Amino acid sequence: MTDYRRLRVALLGAGAVGSQVASLLLRHGSELADRAGASLELVGIAVRDVDAPRDVDLPRELFTTDAETLIVGSDIVIELMGGIEPARSYVHQAINSGADVVTANKALLATHGPEIFDAADQVGAQVYYEAAAAGAIPIIRPLRDSLAGDRVQRIMGIVNGTTNYILDRMDTEGAELADVLADAQRLGYAEADPTADVEGFDAAQKAAILASLAFHTTVPLETVHREGISGIDKAMMDAARHAGYVIKLLAVCERLTGESDVSRHAASPLLDNQTRPSGESISVRVYPALISRAHPLASVHGANNAVFVQAEAAGNLMFYGAGAGGVQTASAVLGDVVSAARRHIAGGVGVGESTRANLPIVEIGRVVTRYQITLEVDDEPGVLATIAGILSEGRVSIATVEQTVVQEANGHPGVARLVIGTHKALEQDLSETVDRLAASGVVERVVSVLRVEGD
Amino acid sequence: MTDYRRLRVALLGAGAVGSQVASLLLRHGSELADRAGASLELVGIAVRDVDAPRDVDLPRELFTTDAETLIVGSDIVIELMGGIEPARSYVHQAINSGADVVTANKALLATHGPEIFDAADQVGAQVYYEAAAAGAIPIIRPLRDSLAGDRVQRIMGIVNGTTNYILDRMDTEGAELADVLADAQRLGYAEADPTADVEGFDAAQKAAILASLAFHTTVPLETVHREGISGIDKAMMDAARHAGYVIKLLAVCERLTGESDVSRHAASPLLDNQTRPSGESISVRVYPALISRAHPLASVHGANNAVFVQAEAAGNLMFYGAGAGGVQTASAVLGDVVSAARRHIAGGVGVGESTRANLPIVEIGRVVTRYQITLEVDDEPGVLATIAGILSEGRVSIATVEQTVVQEANGHPGVARLVIGTHKALEQDLSETVDRLAASGVVERVVSVLRVEGD
Repeated sequence: MTDYRRLRVALLGAGAVGSQVASLLLRHGSELADRAGASLELVGIAVRDVDAPRDVDLPRELFTTDAETLIVGSDIVIELMGGIEPARSYVHQAINSGADVVTANKALLATHGPEIFDAADQVGAQVYYEAAAAGAIPIIRPLRDSLAGDRVQRIMGIVNGTTNYILDRMDTEGAELADVLADAQRLGYAEADPTADVEGFDAAQKAAILASLAFHTTVPLETVHREGISGIDKAMMDAARHAGYVIKLLAVCERLTGESDVSRHAASPLLDNQTRPSGESISVRVYPALISRAHPLASVHGANNAVFVQAEAAGNLMFYGAGAGGVQTASAVLGDVVSAARRHIAGGVGVGESTRANLPIVEIGRVVTRYQITLEVDDEPGVLATIAGILSEGRVSIATVEQTVVQEANGHPGVARLVIGTHKALEQDLSETVDRLAASGVVERVVSVLRVEGD
Repeated sequence: MTDYRRLRVALLGAGAVGSQVASLLLRHGSELADRAGASLELVGIAVRDVDAPRDVDLPRELFTTDAETLIVGSDIVIELMGGIEPARSYVHQAINSGADVVTANKALLATHGPEIFDAADQVGAQVYYEAAAAGAIPIIRPLRDSLAGDRVQRIMGIVNGTTNYILDRMDTEGAELADVLADAQRLGYAEADPTADVEGFDAAQKAAILASLAFHTTVPLETVHREGISGIDKAMMDAARHAGYVIKLLAVCERLTGESDVSRHAASPLLDNQTRPSGESISVRVYPALISRAHPLASVHGANNAVFVQAEAAGNLMFYGAGAGGVQTASAVLGDVVSAARRHIAGGVGVGESTRANLPIVEIGRVVTRYQITLEVDDEPGVLATIAGILSEGRVSIATVEQTVVQEANGHPGVARLVIGTHKALEQDLSETVDRLAASGVVERVVSVLRVEGD
């Protein structure tokens, strides 16, 4: 075996991902050494409880509860504890002691990314985080390096496996959310407390990371508009299917330009005050949306993830794979470990963020998309005209209307269901218009308002 | 504007890709400088004819016919001339004068890659080639870096846009190859001489590049088994559709292990002589194959490309996008230019190949896949038993048989069509068995023999 320089690798955390990382490092050590040009010596694994049961059999002597001592003298520190503290303190300790850091901690990066990248910059350390954005799917290097000469216009990502699993089963089986969720919890696809997944918090963290990288802009987590899937029911799924759509939880990161969609709405006072005429801005948002069944994202099934990227020169690209899972995510972590090792040998930079553009981030109200509005209305003459009038006043232009009678007239007026597809409209205009429709006296019930993405 | 270090960029070639690269460099110069941390100064464009018409308007003073003088003193040389000479000489000149090289030249890399990477290694220059494998699709960095800690088992790629366009139209329109090809030539999707695309030469070059990277092994172009699509006709397409398949031209790069499929065929004398019992080997091949309509590659339409990667830990990944096109490919080239510029500022290594594994490459005869054999046979009692006997003797195991009568008996024996799906079999066994079937006296015609990929 070649006599390589030895690099000391410390692992923090031995959960589903960490135990696989340790196992692969030990099993494929000499192959990885050949690729890295350095021998990767796993010097220890810091855990809270040395005796806790693990997914994988690992040598007991590697375990320690003393992360701080483990970090001292390490060349590469792999942080897979998750959560903010103590992960954040350990990452800073690692950086300050001159180690490179590999992390899959999306919560930490989405909330304290800039602080961590700054700290690393100051000492010339590198932070790698391929596993933090879309599990095993290589998306960080393509965005940072392969597309470095291009201008990303838009990212639409299915970046949460749990919600995609739930929505996919609701779509294919016609099941209700609560039933599928209970099943997903039994099968281990969803946590006992599913809030982080179901309400879009996990997807919002990933959206912030992807948008930062794509637009060279610091994207604080609180600027990401977030809606979860808990409001999606079987009826909405069925209606979507009927109309040739599927409902997916999408992370949308979009570059808005003075010349594009937004300018069509220059009449809106909101825009007059806030947009810089020739300037660009970005929008980052997570919500369940209708997407055409012909769109590549519509065929992402089960717990899989996919990131669809539209760039000015490259056109449409899609990256598809496993968005979660211990061994899958371990692949991305180990890719970073090898990259960090190569850097120790040959120099160069990691995959840190660039904030050189720092574009303004717009609020959800200023986003322009298409919508599908489903209403139950009185089945009387003149009702459609009233509704069309309210939409038109609200600067929401109708593209399609489908009317079906839900309940036959029986002495008093019957109820009809209206499914209205709009042209592109400003979110703020749309939401005010829906409020006016609800208060109009002719609308019995606003059944759903869903955005339509992916044209 | 920030006062960046200036890097001199020389462009060789101003065809469909080159003219877009020049145009984007000039248009987005200051944005690219921010990302690279260096100012990218396009110092000249070497062409054969300064006055030839270009796809894009470019400043006339940039053009020169003197590539050698242009290369002198350049920091980054972008080679987009294509072909072997003079591209090869210019690339060597660039490397020897200390420049980094960015190239999209798959023919050059597939034939002279090792020589070029060696030359670069010796002087510490870097060679970048994201655009050489799958156009705009970022696949080089994912394979080299993101998957550096994993073990790639298999790559199946649709890496030639022209043939995918032709096969997709044959499939969706039920058209004949010659008609679609003529149309593709009119529309600019196919060259006047379509041999490089249709006969799989272009795909074979890309397969060699992908396999080199995935398996850390030098893959000479002549070791890539190559079959084109010229033998595919409407009847084969129709039969594939009927059986739930689509025919795609696939580049397959596969790691063969002692423990996997091959070992099931240890009885084969071919294997006894050539495989190392516990050793691994690889197979690299390009051919039209049946693939299930449920496979993600089956929905890659038109001139799009996609690369499906199976890795030990990461599982299944897919990379999808435009495999050709001037401006799309320019995106990948410029990503490399920015990477090269960052390296000039911060050090580090490019995306060169690693040949540290250098696995043996097996011949097509030793590949194991499933097959679909379509035969016209005499419609007589005992014929199926005869055929089953020949298959069994040849170590080809039958999975499915479908028989339809093609021609009614009319005094003499009628003709029946047999579609035989096999279990996994050794290519060498299969091809000898098909020869014996053809000579058996009960087979009127071997209609087609197609491999089945993607289970």
